[in-house]
Amino acid sequence: MNTPARLAHPMTRKRVVIIGGGFGGMTAARCLRDADVILIDRTNHHVFQPLLYQVATASLSPGDIAWPLRTVFRSQPNVQIVMDEVVSLDHTAHIVHLRHNTPIEFDALIVAPGVRHAYFGHNEWESFAPGLKTIGDAVKLRERILLAFEEAERQKADTGKQSRLSFVIVGGGPTGVELAGALLDLGRKTMGPDYPHLRVENLSITLVEAGSRILSELDPKLSAKALAALHRMGVTVKLNTPVTAVRAGGVMLGDEWIASTNVLWAAGTKPSPLLRTLGVDQDLCGRIKVQPDLTIPQDPWIFVIGDAAHCLDRNGTPLPGIAPVAISEGRYVATLINEDLPPAHRLPFTYHGRGRMVTIGWAQAAAQLGPFHTLGRMAWSLWYVVHIFILIGIRHPVRVMCKWVWAYLTCKPGARLLFEQHIVEHKTALNDQAAGRITEERTPVRRAA
Amino acid sequence: MNTPARLAHPMTRKRVVIIGGGFGGMTAARCLRDADVILIDRTNHHVFQPLLYQVATASLSPGDIAWPLRTVFRSQPNVQIVMDEVVSLDHTAHIVHLRHNTPIEFDALIVAPGVRHAYFGHNEWESFAPGLKTIGDAVKLRERILLAFEEAERQKADTGKQSRLSFVIVGGGPTGVELAGALLDLGRKTMGPDYPHLRVENLSITLVEAGSRILSELDPKLSAKALAALHRMGVTVKLNTPVTAVRAGGVMLGDEWIASTNVLWAAGTKPSPLLRTLGVDQDLCGRIKVQPDLTIPQDPWIFVIGDAAHCLDRNGTPLPGIAPVAISEGRYVATLINEDLPPAHRLPFTYHGRGRMVTIGWAQAAAQLGPFHTLGRMAWSLWYVVHIFILIGIRHPVRVMCKWVWAYLTCKPGARLLFEQHIVEHKTALNDQAAGRITEERTPVRRAA
Repeated sequence: MNTPARLAHPMTRKRVVIIGGGFGGMTAARCLRDADVILIDRTNHHVFQPLLYQVATASLSPGDIAWPLRTVFRSQPNVQIVMDEVVSLDHTAHIVHLRHNTPIEFDALIVAPGVRHAYFGHNEWESFAPGLKTIGDAVKLRERILLAFEEAERQKADTGKQSRLSFVIVGGGPTGVELAGALLDLGRKTMGPDYPHLRVENLSITLVEAGSRILSELDPKLSAKALAALHRMGVTVKLNTPVTAVRAGGVMLGDEWIASTNVLWAAGTKPSPLLRTLGVDQDLCGRIKVQPDLTIPQDPWIFVIGDAAHCLDRNGTPLPGIAPVAISEGRYVATLINEDLPPAHRLPFTYHGRGRMVTIGWAQAAAQLGPFHTLGRMAWSLWYVVHIFILIGIRHPVRVMCKWVWAYLTCKPGARLLFEQHIVEHKTALNDQAAGRITEERTPVRRAA
Repeated sequence: MNTPARLAHPMTRKRVVIIGGGFGGMTAARCLRDADVILIDRTNHHVFQPLLYQVATASLSPGDIAWPLRTVFRSQPNVQIVMDEVVSLDHTAHIVHLRHNTPIEFDALIVAPGVRHAYFGHNEWESFAPGLKTIGDAVKLRERILLAFEEAERQKADTGKQSRLSFVIVGGGPTGVELAGALLDLGRKTMGPDYPHLRVENLSITLVEAGSRILSELDPKLSAKALAALHRMGVTVKLNTPVTAVRAGGVMLGDEWIASTNVLWAAGTKPSPLLRTLGVDQDLCGRIKVQPDLTIPQDPWIFVIGDAAHCLDRNGTPLPGIAPVAISEGRYVATLINEDLPPAHRLPFTYHGRGRMVTIGWAQAAAQLGPFHTLGRMAWSLWYVVHIFILIGIRHPVRVMCKWVWAYLTCKPGARLLFEQHIVEHKTALNDQAAGRITEERTPVRRAA
């Protein structure tokens, strides 16, 4: 099918399909006011990823940082939510193929599937070193961490001794650093009083980074300060240390073996395998090399945004895979579609970063806002205020009793989440049950024309 | 071992082992001030069971109605928490055998393992008709219910038609009635706006009761009113209807087949198989027939309380398996142990019921307080106030932001729960990892003497 420079005749509403309900996809869907939008996600909820590490370390409940997409778009009738997995993209025929639903045709496509963690070709490591990208990951990680403390307590009761309760975190990026700090707080301040046999000296947290410094996206001075802060707190940081093996009992760093019942993975990321079906150039990490207008070379109406896009900033360096970038990419793409701009009239996408913030533990954070660099309590307060406001922006958190009153008075309970790891089995069950009902052959849904 | 009428020499602290951290076990542990208490539970948390149905119907999050036992007893150093499963009881040797930990000797034992659901000898029904006893059950049930709505929506999109979204609830007790009402509210008031294709007439909820009336523990007049209320709301109630078969696609009632993708089980209960190892008379439901002082005939220092105990009230009818009964049983037993009362000096346990309350849906409840019977909005407000106060009594619920501030300032996050269904796999994993460390032979722990 030959794609026109402009979308279908202006009198017909165009159909925009969005893959992924993360920050990029959700923002785009919010900004697309005059199109029929179909938002496809494997789960039924949007996750506030910057706070995932707090669910993994049991500071927050899943329900506090994730909420159903259907509720987010309740007041936007032009957005239809489809909970399903995209198996392939036919960019010539403009059709998206789904695992459970009938294929969907589109006028414009926004691909924002996000990323999973990469194990540098050692996928067998995943079972020993879980990562943190979804609510499901966070809940599993939380269980793993809590059980480690129970296990240590039991070991002491059984044997009278306690080997060091050792956590190894692979990857010195924001996630790794935030996890390390939060774990230390959890162990020392929260678990300490609850586990009579737990001694602070029995708790060991090691942060492993293959590169020469942690938080490499920050200014070198600031990341050096962050390193010092972690050291002061009692986190062992190993720089220039690639992981050579991960097994049940621990990790191999170069030729040093660190015994650990808990190896957490915060290192590499790899975009969804879905991107390969686009048949477009990908960078080393597998991200799609997009045009300045975030499209793929073959088609001016297929956009790739968020972590999945390899997009260069003004200095020619790729933009980081963070929420603010995804959000402004979503806005930009939505504008192009709303205004139905032909490629010739499009201004290239530009990102004006407002800064970076990373928490390093209790009342400790690093903040870099343009020329302004700071580390410590003030940066933390800043981080804290900013995030509370973003959270409130998306959803008002209310205390349990209010939640409850609310649920009864307005009938909008807040805990309607499906944890990813369960979906597949349930879907299958439901499909078996529904098999008798769904009989029609699955032909592409024709769009109004 | 010959058990003395009195416990070990008054100068030595006695060890009390409690099996189960439910209402009975938790209350007993709280009241045992001058003994070394070991509280054993398969999970790490106490669940506020009366609100489980609200987690299953997504009104509340797991973290709202469950909290870690270690935190509950943080300020009570004489209570030690052991997260493990009891595999058998040796009541002659006074030893409890655990799956993972070393066996534990005791001076006094309180058995409060609670119940699971019974399928009247058809355990194969469980996979098609899950029950609701633990947080794990509630989360699974919630996922099943939410996925049913997604599935119905998808069916409509695919086939243009939608078979009735049909829920069948087996059992007309409080749980069944509360689930039926909450499901109806969820479907009509909450999901309605979120699922464009969902029509109220497509939603069908059937409550099946084998007996001649629902809420049989209430006064007949009141349970008749409750039945009428359910009918008015649109719930189909089938009385005198035993379930003869449960399959993937629905249930067989007598010779009537009801197609349903969602059959929820709220009928029979059976106590933990553990009780058999006591070698004591059990009633038809498998509950232990206890003495007037809640002990087993062979031993004045082994108590059975809560759902697991078959205990007669003044009229000779067995006490119901509800929280208030378990709580007062826990208090009674703790007093006997605290005062080290020999059997001859013990007053029989008596329960003074304050009444019963059951919600029937939005602003609808049935309340029976002595002679005072009422149904409707007032009963609901009463139910509501009572439960909020009980909840507050155990833990102050705070809104997310406060939770968060709280977690940072006091380092006591509230979401530290392990969902039951994951524990086993993790434990095994952890044990493999710990195998190298735990070498000592597992000999019984001697108690101080």
